[in-house]
Amino acid sequence: MAATAQSKLAARYGAPDITPLKQWNDTLDQLLDHRSVRAFTDLPLPEGTIETLIAAAQSASTSSNLQVWSVVAVQDADRKDRLSALAGNQAYIRQAPLFFVWLADLSRVSRIGEQSDTELEALPYLESLLLGTIDAALAAQNALVALESLGLGSVYIGAIRNDIEGVAKELGLPPQVYPVFGMCVGYPSDDRPAKVKPRLPQRAVLHHEIYSATGEAAALAEYDEHLGAFYQREGMKASGWSEQVVSRLRSVSSLHGREQLVEELKRMGFGLR
Amino acid sequence: MAATAQSKLAARYGAPDITPLKQWNDTLDQLLDHRSVRAFTDLPLPEGTIETLIAAAQSASTSSNLQVWSVVAVQDADRKDRLSALAGNQAYIRQAPLFFVWLADLSRVSRIGEQSDTELEALPYLESLLLGTIDAALAAQNALVALESLGLGSVYIGAIRNDIEGVAKELGLPPQVYPVFGMCVGYPSDDRPAKVKPRLPQRAVLHHEIYSATGEAAALAEYDEHLGAFYQREGMKASGWSEQVVSRLRSVSSLHGREQLVEELKRMGFGLR
Repeated sequence: MAATAQSKLAARYGAPDITPLKQWNDTLDQLLDHRSVRAFTDLPLPEGTIETLIAAAQSASTSSNLQVWSVVAVQDADRKDRLSALAGNQAYIRQAPLFFVWLADLSRVSRIGEQSDTELEALPYLESLLLGTIDAALAAQNALVALESLGLGSVYIGAIRNDIEGVAKELGLPPQVYPVFGMCVGYPSDDRPAKVKPRLPQRAVLHHEIYSATGEAAALAEYDEHLGAFYQREGMKASGWSEQVVSRLRSVSSLHGREQLVEELKRMGFGLR
Repeated sequence: MAATAQSKLAARYGAPDITPLKQWNDTLDQLLDHRSVRAFTDLPLPEGTIETLIAAAQSASTSSNLQVWSVVAVQDADRKDRLSALAGNQAYIRQAPLFFVWLADLSRVSRIGEQSDTELEALPYLESLLLGTIDAALAAQNALVALESLGLGSVYIGAIRNDIEGVAKELGLPPQVYPVFGMCVGYPSDDRPAKVKPRLPQRAVLHHEIYSATGEAAALAEYDEHLGAFYQREGMKASGWSEQVVSRLRSVSSLHGREQLVEELKRMGFGLR
Protein backbone atom coordinates (compact mmCIF):
# COMPACT_ATOMS: atom_id res chain seq x y z
CA MET A 1 0.00 0.00 0.00
CA ALA A 2 2.96 2.32 0.55
CA ALA A 3 3.17 2.91 -3.21
CA THR A 4 -0.38 4.30 -3.31
CA ALA A 5 0.32 6.44 -0.27
CA GLN A 6 3.35 8.02 -1.92
CA SER A 7 1.58 8.78 -5.20
CA LYS A 8 -1.50 10.20 -3.47
CA LEU A 9 0.65 12.38 -1.23
CA ALA A 10 2.69 13.56 -4.23
CA ALA A 11 -0.49 14.67 -6.02
CA ARG A 12 -1.73 16.48 -2.92
CA TYR A 13 1.50 18.18 -1.87
CA GLY A 14 3.74 18.30 -4.94
CA ALA A 15 6.89 17.10 -3.18
CA PRO A 16 5.62 15.65 0.10
CA ASP A 17 7.91 16.13 3.07
CA ILE A 18 5.99 13.81 5.38
CA THR A 19 6.19 10.13 6.22
CA PRO A 20 2.75 8.53 6.25
CA LEU A 21 1.51 5.53 8.18
CA LYS A 22 2.67 2.10 7.05
CA GLN A 23 -0.95 1.00 7.41
CA TRP A 24 -2.87 2.40 4.43
CA ASN A 25 -6.32 1.71 3.00
CA ASP A 26 -8.86 2.49 0.28
CA THR A 27 -10.64 5.11 2.38
CA LEU A 28 -7.40 7.11 2.69
CA ASP A 29 -6.93 6.73 -1.07
CA GLN A 30 -10.39 8.10 -1.67
CA LEU A 31 -10.02 11.02 0.74
CA LEU A 32 -6.68 12.07 -0.73
CA ASP A 33 -8.09 11.73 -4.26
CA HIS A 34 -10.77 14.37 -3.69
CA ARG A 35 -11.16 16.97 -6.38
CA SER A 36 -13.93 19.51 -6.97
CA VAL A 37 -16.02 18.56 -10.00
CA ARG A 38 -17.44 21.45 -12.05
CA ALA A 39 -18.74 19.57 -15.13
CA PHE A 40 -21.39 16.85 -15.05
CA THR A 41 -22.91 14.36 -17.48
CA ASP A 42 -26.69 14.26 -17.85
CA LEU A 43 -26.90 10.77 -16.36
CA PRO A 44 -29.68 10.75 -13.77
CA LEU A 45 -28.93 9.64 -10.21
CA PRO A 46 -30.06 6.14 -9.22
CA GLU A 47 -33.10 5.94 -6.99
CA GLY A 48 -32.23 6.17 -3.31
CA THR A 49 -29.14 8.34 -3.88
CA ILE A 50 -30.43 11.34 -1.93
CA GLU A 51 -31.69 9.19 0.95
CA THR A 52 -28.37 7.33 1.17
CA LEU A 53 -26.30 10.54 1.16
CA ILE A 54 -28.46 12.10 3.86
CA ALA A 55 -28.21 8.97 6.01
CA ALA A 56 -24.43 9.40 5.81
CA ALA A 57 -24.80 13.11 6.63
CA GLN A 58 -26.98 12.40 9.66
CA SER A 59 -24.37 9.93 10.90
CA ALA A 60 -21.86 12.76 11.42
CA SER A 61 -21.34 14.17 14.90
CA THR A 62 -23.66 16.97 16.01
CA SER A 63 -23.06 19.16 19.03
CA SER A 64 -25.03 17.82 22.05
CA ASN A 65 -27.14 15.84 19.54
CA LEU A 66 -29.05 19.08 18.85
CA GLN A 67 -29.01 18.42 15.08
CA VAL A 68 -29.39 22.10 14.27
CA TRP A 69 -29.14 21.64 10.51
CA SER A 70 -31.37 20.74 7.59
CA VAL A 71 -30.89 20.35 3.86
CA VAL A 72 -32.98 21.10 0.78
CA ALA A 73 -32.53 18.79 -2.22
CA VAL A 74 -33.24 20.74 -5.41
CA GLN A 75 -33.77 18.88 -8.70
CA ASP A 76 -36.21 21.19 -10.47
CA ALA A 77 -34.46 22.83 -13.44
CA ASP A 78 -36.11 26.24 -13.04
CA ARG A 79 -35.30 26.41 -9.35
CA LYS A 80 -31.66 25.46 -10.05
CA ASP A 81 -31.61 28.25 -12.65
CA ARG A 82 -32.81 30.80 -10.14
CA LEU A 83 -30.41 29.56 -7.44
CA SER A 84 -27.55 29.76 -9.91
CA ALA A 85 -28.51 33.38 -10.66
CA LEU A 86 -28.44 34.10 -6.90
CA ALA A 87 -25.04 32.41 -6.49
CA GLY A 88 -22.76 34.10 -9.00
CA ASN A 89 -24.29 32.47 -12.09
CA GLN A 90 -22.22 29.32 -11.85
CA ALA A 91 -23.19 27.09 -14.78
CA TYR A 92 -22.58 23.82 -12.96
CA ILE A 93 -25.45 24.55 -10.55
CA ARG A 94 -27.76 24.32 -13.59
CA GLN A 95 -25.90 21.35 -15.05
CA ALA A 96 -25.78 19.08 -11.99
CA PRO A 97 -28.89 16.87 -11.69
CA LEU A 98 -28.96 17.52 -7.92
CA PHE A 99 -28.21 20.63 -5.90
CA PHE A 100 -28.15 20.46 -2.10
CA VAL A 101 -28.56 23.61 -0.05
CA TRP A 102 -27.19 22.94 3.43
CA LEU A 103 -28.85 24.92 6.19
CA ALA A 104 -28.00 26.00 9.71
CA ASP A 105 -31.41 25.47 11.26
CA LEU A 106 -32.31 26.89 14.67
CA SER A 107 -36.00 26.96 13.76
CA ARG A 108 -36.69 23.32 14.66
CA VAL A 109 -35.42 23.65 18.24
CA SER A 110 -37.20 26.99 18.40
CA ARG A 111 -40.51 25.33 17.50
CA ILE A 112 -39.88 22.78 20.26
CA GLY A 113 -39.36 25.61 22.73
CA GLU A 114 -42.63 27.24 21.64
CA GLN A 115 -44.53 23.99 21.99
CA SER A 116 -43.33 23.53 25.55
CA ASP A 117 -43.92 27.24 26.23
CA THR A 118 -40.29 27.75 27.24
CA GLU A 119 -38.08 30.63 26.19
CA LEU A 120 -34.76 29.26 24.85
CA GLU A 121 -32.48 31.93 26.30
CA ALA A 122 -29.30 30.33 24.96
CA LEU A 123 -30.42 30.63 21.33
CA PRO A 124 -29.89 34.28 20.26
CA TYR A 125 -26.07 34.11 20.49
CA LEU A 126 -23.30 33.92 17.90
CA GLU A 127 -22.52 30.52 19.46
CA SER A 128 -25.82 29.16 18.07
CA LEU A 129 -24.95 30.39 14.58
CA LEU A 130 -21.63 28.55 14.90
CA LEU A 131 -23.38 25.40 16.19
CA GLY A 132 -25.64 25.30 13.15
CA THR A 133 -22.82 26.16 10.75
CA ILE A 134 -20.51 23.48 12.13
CA ASP A 135 -23.28 20.86 12.30
CA ALA A 136 -24.15 21.56 8.64
CA ALA A 137 -20.50 21.40 7.55
CA LEU A 138 -19.79 18.07 9.28
CA ALA A 139 -22.96 16.58 7.80
CA ALA A 140 -22.21 17.88 4.30
CA GLN A 141 -18.66 16.57 4.34
CA ASN A 142 -19.95 13.10 5.24
CA ALA A 143 -22.36 13.30 2.29
CA LEU A 144 -19.46 14.30 0.07
CA VAL A 145 -17.34 11.34 1.17
CA ALA A 146 -20.35 9.07 0.59
CA LEU A 147 -21.07 10.39 -2.89
CA GLU A 148 -17.43 10.10 -3.98
CA SER A 149 -17.45 6.47 -2.80
CA LEU A 150 -20.33 5.95 -5.26
CA GLY A 151 -18.44 7.41 -8.22
CA LEU A 152 -20.29 10.73 -8.07
CA GLY A 153 -18.61 14.14 -8.06
CA SER A 154 -19.34 17.40 -6.30
CA VAL A 155 -18.36 20.98 -5.65
CA TYR A 156 -19.25 23.24 -2.70
CA ILE A 157 -20.91 26.55 -3.56
CA GLY A 158 -20.01 29.22 -0.98
CA ALA A 159 -21.59 31.85 -3.25
CA ILE A 160 -24.95 30.73 -1.88
CA ARG A 161 -24.09 33.22 0.90
CA ASN A 162 -23.96 36.14 -1.57
CA ASP A 163 -27.68 36.68 -1.04
CA ILE A 164 -28.98 34.57 1.82
CA GLU A 165 -32.31 36.41 1.92
CA GLY A 166 -32.88 35.72 -1.78
CA VAL A 167 -32.10 32.04 -1.27
CA ALA A 168 -34.34 31.93 1.82
CA LYS A 169 -37.21 33.33 -0.22
CA GLU A 170 -36.63 30.86 -3.07
CA LEU A 171 -36.59 27.89 -0.68
CA GLY A 172 -39.31 29.11 1.68
CA LEU A 173 -36.99 29.09 4.71
CA PRO A 174 -38.55 30.03 8.07
CA PRO A 175 -36.84 32.53 10.41
CA GLN A 176 -33.65 31.34 12.17
CA VAL A 177 -32.53 29.26 9.18
CA TYR A 178 -29.73 30.34 6.82
CA PRO A 179 -28.11 28.64 3.82
CA VAL A 180 -24.49 27.83 4.73
CA PHE A 181 -23.39 26.62 1.29
CA GLY A 182 -24.64 24.73 -1.74
CA MET A 183 -23.34 21.47 -3.18
CA CYS A 184 -23.65 20.25 -6.79
CA VAL A 185 -23.96 16.47 -7.21
CA GLY A 186 -23.72 14.40 -10.39
CA TYR A 187 -21.58 12.08 -12.46
CA PRO A 188 -18.32 13.81 -13.46
CA SER A 189 -18.05 14.60 -17.17
CA ASP A 190 -14.98 13.25 -18.96
CA ASP A 191 -14.91 16.42 -21.05
CA ARG A 192 -13.44 18.45 -18.21
CA PRO A 193 -11.66 15.99 -15.91
CA ALA A 194 -11.03 17.48 -12.48
CA LYS A 195 -7.53 17.35 -11.02
CA VAL A 196 -6.27 16.99 -7.47
CA LYS A 197 -5.20 20.49 -6.39
CA PRO A 198 -1.98 20.78 -4.41
CA ARG A 199 -2.34 22.16 -0.90
CA LEU A 200 -0.02 24.04 1.45
CA PRO A 201 2.93 22.03 2.75
CA GLN A 202 1.73 20.24 5.84
CA ARG A 203 4.15 22.09 8.12
CA ALA A 204 2.28 25.34 7.30
CA VAL A 205 -1.01 24.16 8.80
CA LEU A 206 0.02 21.50 11.35
CA HIS A 207 1.45 22.71 14.64
CA HIS A 208 2.79 20.57 17.48
CA GLU A 209 1.89 21.54 21.07
CA ILE A 210 1.85 25.27 20.31
CA TYR A 211 1.22 27.43 17.26
CA SER A 212 4.35 28.48 15.44
CA ALA A 213 4.77 30.55 12.28
CA THR A 214 8.52 29.93 12.21
CA GLY A 215 9.50 28.60 8.82
CA GLU A 216 6.20 29.70 7.34
CA ALA A 217 7.73 32.07 4.79
CA ALA A 218 9.77 29.25 3.24
CA ALA A 219 6.76 26.92 3.18
CA LEU A 220 4.63 29.58 1.45
CA ALA A 221 7.34 30.30 -1.13
CA GLU A 222 7.53 26.58 -1.88
CA TYR A 223 3.76 26.44 -2.28
CA ASP A 224 3.65 29.50 -4.53
CA GLU A 225 5.97 27.59 -6.85
CA HIS A 226 4.05 24.27 -6.67
CA LEU A 227 0.71 25.88 -7.31
CA GLY A 228 2.05 28.06 -10.12
CA ALA A 229 3.50 24.96 -11.80
CA PHE A 230 0.17 23.13 -11.32
CA TYR A 231 -1.77 25.91 -13.04
CA GLN A 232 0.78 26.04 -15.85
CA ARG A 233 0.42 22.28 -16.41
CA GLU A 234 -3.35 22.76 -16.55
CA GLY A 235 -3.01 25.52 -19.13
CA MET A 236 -4.34 28.16 -16.74
CA LYS A 237 -2.93 31.57 -15.85
CA ALA A 238 0.00 30.69 -13.63
CA SER A 239 -0.17 32.77 -10.48
CA GLY A 240 1.25 31.85 -7.11
CA TRP A 241 -0.94 31.33 -4.07
CA SER A 242 0.09 34.49 -2.20
CA GLU A 243 -0.93 36.56 -5.21
CA GLN A 244 -4.32 34.79 -5.34
CA VAL A 245 -4.91 35.35 -1.62
CA VAL A 246 -4.23 39.06 -1.92
CA SER A 247 -6.36 39.50 -5.02
CA ARG A 248 -9.25 37.57 -3.40
CA LEU A 249 -9.20 39.52 -0.14
CA ARG A 250 -7.95 43.02 -0.95
CA SER A 251 -11.35 44.50 -1.76
CA VAL A 252 -14.79 44.27 -0.16
CA SER A 253 -16.25 44.02 -3.67
CA SER A 254 -15.00 40.42 -3.89
CA LEU A 255 -17.45 39.54 -1.09
CA HIS A 256 -20.29 39.95 -3.63
CA GLY A 257 -22.87 40.77 -0.99
CA ARG A 258 -21.49 38.72 1.87
CA GLU A 259 -20.41 41.96 3.56
CA GLN A 260 -24.13 42.28 4.44
CA LEU A 261 -24.32 38.95 6.31
CA VAL A 262 -24.68 40.42 9.81
CA GLU A 263 -27.61 42.66 8.85
CA GLU A 264 -29.25 39.91 6.78
CA LEU A 265 -28.91 37.31 9.53
CA LYS A 266 -30.46 39.70 12.04
CA ARG A 267 -33.41 40.34 9.73
CA MET A 268 -33.72 36.55 9.39
CA GLY A 269 -34.18 36.13 13.12
CA PHE A 270 -30.66 35.33 14.35
CA GLY A 271 -29.66 36.97 17.63
CA LEU A 272 -25.88 37.02 17.16
CA ARG A 273 -25.27 38.38 20.65
CA MET B 1 -24.97 -5.55 0.38
CA ALA B 2 -28.63 -4.66 0.91
CA ALA B 3 -28.57 -6.58 4.21
CA THR B 4 -25.81 -4.34 5.60
CA ALA B 5 -27.65 -1.25 4.42
CA GLN B 6 -30.80 -2.25 6.27
CA SER B 7 -29.02 -3.08 9.52
CA LYS B 8 -26.94 0.14 9.44
CA LEU B 9 -30.02 2.23 8.74
CA ALA B 10 -31.94 0.48 11.51
CA ALA B 11 -29.19 1.36 14.01
CA ARG B 12 -29.11 4.97 12.84
CA TYR B 13 -32.85 5.62 12.61
CA GLY B 14 -34.56 3.04 14.80
CA ALA B 15 -37.24 2.08 12.27
CA PRO B 16 -35.96 3.51 8.99
CA ASP B 17 -38.64 4.82 6.64
CA ILE B 18 -36.29 5.29 3.68
CA THR B 19 -35.24 3.09 0.77
CA PRO B 20 -31.49 3.26 0.23
CA LEU B 21 -29.48 2.77 -2.94
CA LYS B 22 -29.15 -0.76 -4.29
CA GLN B 23 -25.45 0.01 -4.74
CA TRP B 24 -23.82 -0.08 -1.29
CA ASN B 25 -20.21 -0.18 -0.14
CA ASP B 26 -17.80 -0.33 2.79
CA THR B 27 -17.40 3.44 2.96
CA LEU B 28 -21.15 3.85 3.50
CA ASP B 29 -20.95 1.14 6.16
CA GLN B 30 -18.19 3.02 7.93
CA LEU B 31 -19.95 6.41 7.75
CA LEU B 32 -23.21 5.01 9.10
CA ASP B 33 -21.31 3.17 11.84
CA HIS B 34 -19.91 6.36 13.35
CA ARG B 35 -20.15 6.71 17.09
CA SER B 36 -18.45 9.17 19.44
CA VAL B 37 -15.78 7.45 21.53
CA ARG B 38 -15.27 8.76 25.07
CA ALA B 39 -12.98 6.06 26.52
CA PHE B 40 -9.56 5.17 25.16
CA THR B 41 -6.92 2.50 25.77
CA ASP B 42 -3.36 3.60 26.49
CA LEU B 43 -2.07 2.10 23.23
CA PRO B 44 0.17 4.68 21.55
CA LEU B 45 -0.59 5.77 17.98
CA PRO B 46 1.61 4.31 15.23
CA GLU B 47 4.19 6.65 13.74
CA GLY B 48 2.82 8.73 10.90
CA THR B 49 -0.74 8.77 12.25
CA ILE B 50 -0.91 12.54 12.72
CA GLU B 51 0.65 13.24 9.31
CA THR B 52 -1.74 10.82 7.58
CA LEU B 53 -4.83 12.31 9.26
CA ILE B 54 -3.77 15.84 8.36
CA ALA B 55 -3.13 14.84 4.73
CA ALA B 56 -6.75 13.62 4.66
CA ALA B 57 -7.86 16.88 6.32
CA GLN B 58 -6.00 19.02 3.79
CA SER B 59 -7.65 17.05 0.98
CA ALA B 60 -11.07 18.44 1.95
CA SER B 61 -12.53 21.36 0.01
CA THR B 62 -11.58 24.84 1.13
CA SER B 63 -13.32 28.01 0.01
CA SER B 64 -11.42 29.61 -2.93
CA ASN B 65 -8.43 27.47 -1.87
CA LEU B 66 -7.77 30.04 0.88
CA GLN B 67 -7.06 27.29 3.43
CA VAL B 68 -7.97 29.54 6.36
CA TRP B 69 -7.55 26.86 8.99
CA SER B 70 -4.77 25.27 11.04
CA VAL B 71 -4.58 22.57 13.67
CA VAL B 72 -2.53 22.01 16.81
CA ALA B 73 -1.69 18.40 17.70
CA VAL B 74 -1.33 18.10 21.48
CA GLN B 75 0.27 15.01 23.01
CA ASP B 76 1.88 16.47 26.12
CA ALA B 77 0.04 15.18 29.21
CA ASP B 78 0.27 18.43 31.17
CA ARG B 79 -1.04 20.50 28.27
CA LYS B 80 -3.93 18.05 27.77
CA ASP B 81 -4.67 18.43 31.50
CA ARG B 82 -4.82 22.20 31.22
CA LEU B 83 -6.94 22.06 28.04
CA SER B 84 -9.32 19.66 29.74
CA ALA B 85 -9.68 22.11 32.62
CA LEU B 86 -10.49 24.87 30.10
CA ALA B 87 -13.06 22.68 28.32
CA GLY B 88 -15.45 21.51 31.01
CA ASN B 89 -13.04 19.04 32.64
CA GLN B 90 -13.81 16.20 30.28
CA ALA B 91 -11.71 13.22 31.36
CA TYR B 92 -11.30 11.79 27.87
CA ILE B 93 -9.23 14.81 26.82
CA ARG B 94 -6.65 13.68 29.36
CA GLN B 95 -7.05 10.01 28.47
CA ALA B 96 -6.73 10.21 24.68
CA PRO B 97 -3.11 9.99 23.50
CA LEU B 98 -3.75 12.74 20.95
CA PHE B 99 -5.87 15.88 21.15
CA PHE B 100 -6.36 18.02 18.06
CA VAL B 101 -7.42 21.65 18.40
CA TRP B 102 -8.89 22.77 15.07
CA LEU B 103 -8.45 26.45 14.34
CA ALA B 104 -10.10 29.01 12.09
CA ASP B 105 -6.96 30.84 11.01
CA LEU B 106 -7.10 34.24 9.30
CA SER B 107 -3.61 35.11 10.54
CA ARG B 108 -1.76 33.34 7.72
CA VAL B 109 -3.50 35.26 4.94
CA SER B 110 -3.13 38.36 7.07
CA ARG B 111 0.64 37.89 7.20
CA ILE B 112 0.64 37.50 3.39
CA GLY B 113 -1.21 40.82 3.11
CA GLU B 114 1.33 42.50 5.38
CA GLN B 115 4.24 41.14 3.39
CA SER B 116 2.83 42.51 0.16
CA ASP B 117 1.93 45.74 1.94
CA THR B 118 -1.74 45.39 0.98
CA GLU B 119 -4.70 45.97 3.26
CA LEU B 120 -7.05 42.98 3.05
CA GLU B 121 -10.32 44.89 3.23
CA ALA B 122 -12.49 41.78 2.90
CA LEU B 123 -11.09 40.22 6.08
CA PRO B 124 -12.79 41.95 9.05
CA TYR B 125 -16.27 40.57 8.29
CA LEU B 126 -18.40 37.84 9.85
CA GLU B 127 -18.07 36.11 6.46
CA SER B 128 -14.35 35.51 7.16
CA LEU B 129 -15.14 33.95 10.53
CA LEU B 130 -17.56 31.61 8.74
CA LEU B 131 -14.96 30.81 6.04
CA GLY B 132 -12.45 29.75 8.67
CA THR B 133 -15.03 27.86 10.72
CA ILE B 134 -16.37 25.94 7.70
CA ASP B 135 -12.88 25.22 6.36
CA ALA B 136 -11.85 23.84 9.76
CA ALA B 137 -15.00 21.71 10.04
CA LEU B 138 -14.66 20.13 6.59
CA ALA B 139 -11.00 19.36 7.26
CA ALA B 140 -11.71 17.90 10.69
CA GLN B 141 -14.49 15.68 9.41
CA ASN B 142 -12.15 14.24 6.77
CA ALA B 143 -9.62 13.51 9.52
CA LEU B 144 -12.37 11.80 11.50
CA VAL B 145 -13.37 9.58 8.57
CA ALA B 146 -9.69 8.75 8.04
CA LEU B 147 -9.05 7.84 11.67
CA GLU B 148 -12.14 5.64 11.87
CA SER B 149 -10.95 3.79 8.76
CA LEU B 150 -7.78 3.00 10.76
CA GLY B 151 -9.67 1.55 13.71
CA LEU B 152 -9.22 4.66 15.84
CA GLY B 153 -12.01 6.44 17.68
CA SER B 154 -12.78 10.07 18.36
CA VAL B 155 -15.10 12.64 19.88
CA TYR B 156 -15.49 16.35 19.03
CA ILE B 157 -15.07 18.78 21.93
CA GLY B 158 -17.22 21.88 21.39
CA ALA B 159 -16.45 22.94 24.97
CA ILE B 160 -13.13 24.23 23.67
CA ARG B 161 -15.19 27.35 22.86
CA ASN B 162 -16.09 27.86 26.57
CA ASP B 163 -12.92 29.94 26.96
CA ILE B 164 -11.32 30.67 23.62
CA GLU B 165 -8.94 33.25 25.08
CA GLY B 166 -7.69 30.74 27.63
CA VAL B 167 -7.11 28.16 24.91
CA ALA B 168 -5.42 30.77 22.71
CA LYS B 169 -3.03 31.60 25.53
CA GLU B 170 -2.27 27.92 26.20
CA LEU B 171 -1.52 27.24 22.52
CA GLY B 172 0.22 30.54 21.74
CA LEU B 173 -2.30 31.51 19.07
CA PRO B 174 -1.65 34.78 17.22
CA PRO B 175 -4.46 37.32 16.65
CA GLN B 176 -7.18 36.37 14.14
CA VAL B 177 -7.06 32.69 15.09
CA TYR B 178 -9.70 30.98 17.22
CA PRO B 179 -10.19 27.36 18.35
CA VAL B 180 -13.35 26.00 16.66
CA PHE B 181 -13.45 22.66 18.48
CA GLY B 182 -11.20 19.98 19.87
CA MET B 183 -11.02 16.32 18.89
CA CYS B 184 -9.81 13.40 21.02
CA VAL B 185 -8.07 10.59 19.12
CA GLY B 186 -7.11 7.12 20.33
CA TYR B 187 -7.95 3.43 20.28
CA PRO B 188 -11.46 2.84 21.67
CA SER B 189 -11.53 1.07 25.03
CA ASP B 190 -13.63 -2.09 25.21
CA ASP B 191 -14.58 -1.13 28.78
CA ARG B 192 -17.05 1.46 27.59
CA PRO B 193 -18.10 0.45 24.06
CA ALA B 194 -19.67 3.34 22.17
CA LYS B 195 -23.04 2.83 20.51
CA VAL B 196 -24.52 4.26 17.32
CA LYS B 197 -26.92 6.99 18.44
CA PRO B 198 -30.27 7.21 16.65
CA ARG B 199 -30.90 10.44 14.75
CA LEU B 200 -34.05 12.32 13.76
CA PRO B 201 -36.19 10.59 11.12
CA GLN B 202 -34.80 11.65 7.77
CA ARG B 203 -38.00 13.44 6.78
CA ALA B 204 -37.42 15.92 9.64
CA VAL B 205 -34.13 17.22 8.18
CA LEU B 206 -34.41 16.51 4.41
CA HIS B 207 -36.63 18.83 2.37
CA HIS B 208 -37.43 18.53 -1.33
CA GLU B 209 -37.43 21.72 -3.43
CA ILE B 210 -38.67 23.91 -0.58
CA TYR B 211 -38.48 23.83 3.20
CA SER B 212 -41.52 22.32 4.86
CA ALA B 213 -42.24 21.71 8.53
CA THR B 214 -45.48 19.85 7.74
CA GLY B 215 -45.45 16.50 9.47
CA GLU B 216 -42.61 17.59 11.74
CA ALA B 217 -44.58 17.15 14.97
CA ALA B 218 -45.21 13.47 14.20
CA ALA B 219 -41.56 12.92 13.24
CA LEU B 220 -40.38 14.52 16.48
CA ALA B 221 -42.79 12.47 18.58
CA GLU B 222 -41.49 9.32 16.90
CA TYR B 223 -37.91 10.37 17.63
CA ASP B 224 -38.66 11.20 21.26
CA GLU B 225 -39.78 7.61 21.62
CA HIS B 226 -36.82 6.07 19.75
CA LEU B 227 -34.25 8.05 21.66
CA GLY B 228 -35.94 7.40 25.01
CA ALA B 229 -35.89 3.66 24.25
CA PHE B 230 -32.22 3.89 23.23
CA TYR B 231 -31.23 5.54 26.53
CA GLN B 232 -33.27 3.00 28.45
CA ARG B 233 -31.47 0.11 26.69
CA GLU B 234 -28.17 1.78 27.59
CA GLY B 235 -29.19 2.04 31.22
CA MET B 236 -29.22 5.84 31.12
CA LYS B 237 -31.90 8.25 32.29
CA ALA B 238 -34.54 7.90 29.61
CA SER B 239 -35.60 11.32 28.43
CA GLY B 240 -36.97 12.20 25.03
CA TRP B 241 -35.16 14.48 22.62
CA SER B 242 -37.53 17.45 22.91
CA GLU B 243 -36.96 17.46 26.66
CA GLN B 244 -33.16 17.40 26.14
CA VAL B 245 -33.32 20.26 23.65
CA VAL B 246 -35.28 22.44 26.04
CA SER B 247 -33.07 21.66 29.01
CA ARG B 248 -29.90 22.34 26.96
CA LEU B 249 -31.08 25.69 25.56
CA ARG B 250 -33.42 27.20 28.14
CA SER B 251 -30.75 29.01 30.12
CA VAL B 252 -27.71 31.09 29.17
CA SER B 253 -25.81 29.32 31.96
CA SER B 254 -25.59 26.19 29.79
CA LEU B 255 -23.38 28.15 27.38
CA HIS B 256 -20.58 27.94 29.99
CA GLY B 257 -18.85 31.08 28.76
CA ARG B 258 -19.74 30.86 25.09
CA GLU B 259 -22.16 33.74 25.58
CA GLN B 260 -18.98 35.88 25.57
CA LEU B 261 -17.80 34.74 22.11
CA VAL B 262 -18.48 38.04 20.30
CA GLU B 263 -16.48 40.12 22.79
CA GLU B 264 -13.69 37.54 22.97
CA LEU B 265 -13.39 37.22 19.18
CA LYS B 266 -13.19 41.02 18.87
CA ARG B 267 -10.41 41.16 21.46
CA MET B 268 -8.68 38.39 19.49
CA GLY B 269 -8.58 40.51 16.34
CA PHE B 270 -11.69 39.40 14.44
CA GLY B 271 -13.64 42.17 12.72
CA LEU B 272 -17.09 40.52 12.64
CA ARG B 273 -18.60 43.37 10.62
